[in-house]
Amino acid sequence: MRHFIEELNELQNKLLEMAGLVEASVHASVRSLVDRDEKQAIQVMKNEDRINVMEMEIDRLATRLLALQQPMAKDLRFLTAAMKINGDLERMGDLAVNMVKRAISLMERPMRQLPVDIPHMAKLVEAMVRKSLDAFSKRDLDLARNVLESDDVIDSLRDTAYQELVAHMQKEPEAIPEALDLIFVARNLERIADHATNIAEDVVYMIHGVDVRHHAEKM
Amino acid sequence: MRHFIEELNELQNKLLEMAGLVEASVHASVRSLVDRDEKQAIQVMKNEDRINVMEMEIDRLATRLLALQQPMAKDLRFLTAAMKINGDLERMGDLAVNMVKRAISLMERPMRQLPVDIPHMAKLVEAMVRKSLDAFSKRDLDLARNVLESDDVIDSLRDTAYQELVAHMQKEPEAIPEALDLIFVARNLERIADHATNIAEDVVYMIHGVDVRHHAEKM
Repeated sequence: MRHFIEELNELQNKLLEMAGLVEASVHASVRSLVDRDEKQAIQVMKNEDRINVMEMEIDRLATRLLALQQPMAKDLRFLTAAMKINGDLERMGDLAVNMVKRAISLMERPMRQLPVDIPHMAKLVEAMVRKSLDAFSKRDLDLARNVLESDDVIDSLRDTAYQELVAHMQKEPEAIPEALDLIFVARNLERIADHATNIAEDVVYMIHGVDVRHHAEKM
Repeated sequence: MRHFIEELNELQNKLLEMAGLVEASVHASVRSLVDRDEKQAIQVMKNEDRINVMEMEIDRLATRLLALQQPMAKDLRFLTAAMKINGDLERMGDLAVNMVKRAISLMERPMRQLPVDIPHMAKLVEAMVRKSLDAFSKRDLDLARNVLESDDVIDSLRDTAYQELVAHMQKEPEAIPEALDLIFVARNLERIADHATNIAEDVVYMIHGVDVRHHAEKM
């Protein structure tokens, strides 16, 4: 039994290590974009390989724990939540790579003033990611719920960015490639927030055994 | 033991039922777009609720089987694969809804000739989805590998669509909203293909116990 608890801790630690890498990638991808900084972009590309390897390691460990032990209730919920969070983290790493590709495309073109506040949106999204991971490591239900409430704000920022950038494209067609890059950056940020929301939902399920996806249950 | 096998079959059947709904949604979303058909769009919206409910049912069933039984090797791999495929199917349903939103936005605007062959791309993507699900239900490794090989074709179609639609936008700025809708449709189709690829990877793992994600192993 002691051994099993140690292995569960190992799984949690690996997941938090991966989460740290993913957070660093998201942050670096935003910096590469805002500061037109190639070094940050390269860092994100490097992190991706490590994140992919970690995803497979974590999956193997979680599957082995499901197989070798007969985890009940709480531990089982932790293991299935860990597998899902693992998948969400890996996708977040991919989305950071997508953002970096847009950042590089933007570096190769003239700098323009475009009607979208990426740093503001990124700050909110990074806070959601942080909170969802804190909620996981501290088993903090309030924090998880706080993440779930933030998702609509990000959706609405993305919609506003979309409308304003489309209007700008029509006024200044030569800015279309740059405006499009930023539409996709806003979209990638919003998808990162979606994955933070997924993690928060998994945390609620892990703690309470209640599935809050698709608003199945009143919170 | 007989009981466990029956429950595994029940899980597989539920998953295939959900897969059928998702396939119908993807197909209807493409039809709503190509035929400017609102009825097909409404069908996709209706399917989504059912898909969301099924996702939660399947998760509950898979988790219960993991908890109550002590599945080994092959059955364990089936159960973890089923949980992942379940998640992929649900996302594919969401992407069909995204396409339908673009279809509705396009119906409200004048019809234009734009340089993208959505029906061709959709046909290839739907074939990938079909094959990945057949590979799952028949435990067919060759079919799964065939899906993995198709993914690059779709990526390249999406890239070509992107370039041509951006060039068109610059020539005809009044067509920007419609061209953007189609850029996102191409992107949604490509993401559906990604999920079919994920399913094919899970099928390979389920049959062989080999993780082929991120090209970890030569196939």
